[in-house]
Amino acid sequence: MASVVLIINAGSSSLKFSLYRSQNNSDFELYSKGLLEGIGSGPHLKITDRQDKIIHEKNWTNGRYAKLDVRDELLDQVLKWLFDFIKKDRILAIGHRVVHGGMKYYRPVVIDQKIYSYLDSLTPFVPLHQPASLAPMKVIMDKYPDITQVACFDTAFHATMPDKAKRFALPRKYYDSGLRRYGFHGLSYHYIVHYLQKNKSPLIKGKIVVAHLGNGSSVAAINKGKSIDTSMSFTPLDGLVMGTRTGQIDPNVVLYMTREEKRSPDEIEDIIWKQSGLLGVSEVSSDMRGLIHEIAQNGPKSKFAKQALDLFIYKLIGEIGRLIVCLKGIDGLIFTAGIGAHATYVRSVVCQTLSWLGIEIDEQANKDGNELISTSESNIKVYTIPTNEEFIILKEIQQLLLNSKQRA
Amino acid sequence: MASVVLIINAGSSSLKFSLYRSQNNSDFELYSKGLLEGIGSGPHLKITDRQDKIIHEKNWTNGRYAKLDVRDELLDQVLKWLFDFIKKDRILAIGHRVVHGGMKYYRPVVIDQKIYSYLDSLTPFVPLHQPASLAPMKVIMDKYPDITQVACFDTAFHATMPDKAKRFALPRKYYDSGLRRYGFHGLSYHYIVHYLQKNKSPLIKGKIVVAHLGNGSSVAAINKGKSIDTSMSFTPLDGLVMGTRTGQIDPNVVLYMTREEKRSPDEIEDIIWKQSGLLGVSEVSSDMRGLIHEIAQNGPKSKFAKQALDLFIYKLIGEIGRLIVCLKGIDGLIFTAGIGAHATYVRSVVCQTLSWLGIEIDEQANKDGNELISTSESNIKVYTIPTNEEFIILKEIQQLLLNSKQRA
Repeated sequence: MASVVLIINAGSSSLKFSLYRSQNNSDFELYSKGLLEGIGSGPHLKITDRQDKIIHEKNWTNGRYAKLDVRDELLDQVLKWLFDFIKKDRILAIGHRVVHGGMKYYRPVVIDQKIYSYLDSLTPFVPLHQPASLAPMKVIMDKYPDITQVACFDTAFHATMPDKAKRFALPRKYYDSGLRRYGFHGLSYHYIVHYLQKNKSPLIKGKIVVAHLGNGSSVAAINKGKSIDTSMSFTPLDGLVMGTRTGQIDPNVVLYMTREEKRSPDEIEDIIWKQSGLLGVSEVSSDMRGLIHEIAQNGPKSKFAKQALDLFIYKLIGEIGRLIVCLKGIDGLIFTAGIGAHATYVRSVVCQTLSWLGIEIDEQANKDGNELISTSESNIKVYTIPTNEEFIILKEIQQLLLNSKQRA
Repeated sequence: MASVVLIINAGSSSLKFSLYRSQNNSDFELYSKGLLEGIGSGPHLKITDRQDKIIHEKNWTNGRYAKLDVRDELLDQVLKWLFDFIKKDRILAIGHRVVHGGMKYYRPVVIDQKIYSYLDSLTPFVPLHQPASLAPMKVIMDKYPDITQVACFDTAFHATMPDKAKRFALPRKYYDSGLRRYGFHGLSYHYIVHYLQKNKSPLIKGKIVVAHLGNGSSVAAINKGKSIDTSMSFTPLDGLVMGTRTGQIDPNVVLYMTREEKRSPDEIEDIIWKQSGLLGVSEVSSDMRGLIHEIAQNGPKSKFAKQALDLFIYKLIGEIGRLIVCLKGIDGLIFTAGIGAHATYVRSVVCQTLSWLGIEIDEQANKDGNELISTSESNIKVYTIPTNEEFIILKEIQQLLLNSKQRA
């Protein structure tokens, strides 16, 4: 009997999942992928096999499904289809990418009611993200209590940060009650470190800055494989400019909106998380591809789009600078995630701006989308490496199950 | 008849002032200095001559004066004494250090009712600072309308910052309505540039980072004498850790305090402006001297004080790093203001951490309090230069009066 691991990556309006299957309980291969989109507006499900051929598709057209409160019902329908699809196989575990592990969880954990409740109690820290992460976990716990569920945390990789990188200069009680700099995108950074390790890169012993640039963006300073600081902090809003998030702003902006504009916390949250960033400045698009297309089409007329792009790059370079100095030098710079892997222009400007430090970019290699994009003369190696968060979740689950077997 | 210029630097609970006097209307010399402290609690006035000899002193012991609303009455009493003291001289102008010039004023201006109203309208931007800046101006305008008053702005020096350094990634309407990164301590940075110019330092044509470290702290990146970026932004809270201010924190911390702790904007303002920073983390002192003394006395037992000191230095180094990369290199690093001029340990750790960039500190020169504290081998020159904001105000007033005379 084959065994399968289901990996779930749940966002606020979408759910990505992958089935990995193994005949020998150890060599897992991708078997199927799925995407449920439009949760809360018009849900649409597409499931493909490993050749990307659609094997199942569904639209929920009834107006009743245009609401967020049918989320659990949708999840249940998806799970039913999946469990029927793999009914001859044994479900080894379901792994979840969870945004926040709080102060307690810096390693993957097998979910039980108590742990679930703790994770749920972190919702006030990241109200837009944690409930989405936990919704599928709850549906499965209630309906299929015998299935082993594992949570892997985006905060976990940054556990190694020293006190001075984790602490805000707030009264101490805030740190003690959890208002800390956690950092996110940890599964992605973990993958990059794993990749360097697997490829016996000398960077694994060096000082690197990894730029995870996607819909959410952050950078991390990694010394000998361990995170020492990162740009996101208490929540995934802090640090860099993102698609619709401000990144770092003076906290008094929030007080100003409360006092002078009489805005509620929900309204402010909506502005700084969903109406800002590339979208807010460009008034064109929250998507880097959209901006670059706009600038290519309209040239100097796209003033707003250009300002948004320049601001994105400027904040990115500044934060890389901060991290380089925290590392006391840099041996390698790695770009990953959607923008990191595809935005040739962004990589090029970042490297040119850092040329005084000894970075020399190979523009042709950059355009060609090579993995190594620095020249052989460059003091600092620059790479583009696609990330794979699911791979880390799968690996963690296997490790966790192996450990628990060994203990049994 | 001698002419005098009075320079006023008003804080929220104190008022510093200096009289400069000239026999020829051009070579002004310090004539007298004063400090009114304890406004709102127990006011105390001390006025000294240029040899620091006390020439006038007063305590307001009546309980009625322990309130903030007698501020104007106190100011009036101080002015009366001063005007009587210089009654044989001609008052050329009164200069004010004003925190915020908003989007309109990037140069010193002669105050009239209209300009005063505009400056007053900026109060919502910096509610803890702007009213204090404006209070003496209003008293003088009402009681002595014929005296020329000039406002010099702490934001003005940063007018040269490019759009990408001035802009938050908020929806554009916020930038247009004034929610921008202004930067502060501009009179201090201006003085440092003036000092380099006067001393024909080659740094005037180079890339420098100036660290103004006092009760409020910021750093500025200055290229060829012009500010290109700085750590304070919309308000003087942002950026570095300060005596009682947080510096940069995730703006969601403010939302969290509003939603989960049900705190009002006033309470949050009090926490992040007055209970945080060195004081909040150390629980010992908001003063760097206090912390360093505590650590020297109690060694490893002073864990909280050490964490506060480490955090202060870490954020400072990180921000210097960000600015160095924005400058694409650095020729000189300059420390100024109270902590900058006196905290040998802070300067030493910053320089050691940046040694990989080519900074070599001369530890003896640093301890001796020399102006130049880098070795002759150091690629990057490091200086300690005491700041003098009053000097810039005086110079600006002279220039402004000269210009208006030439126009007349």
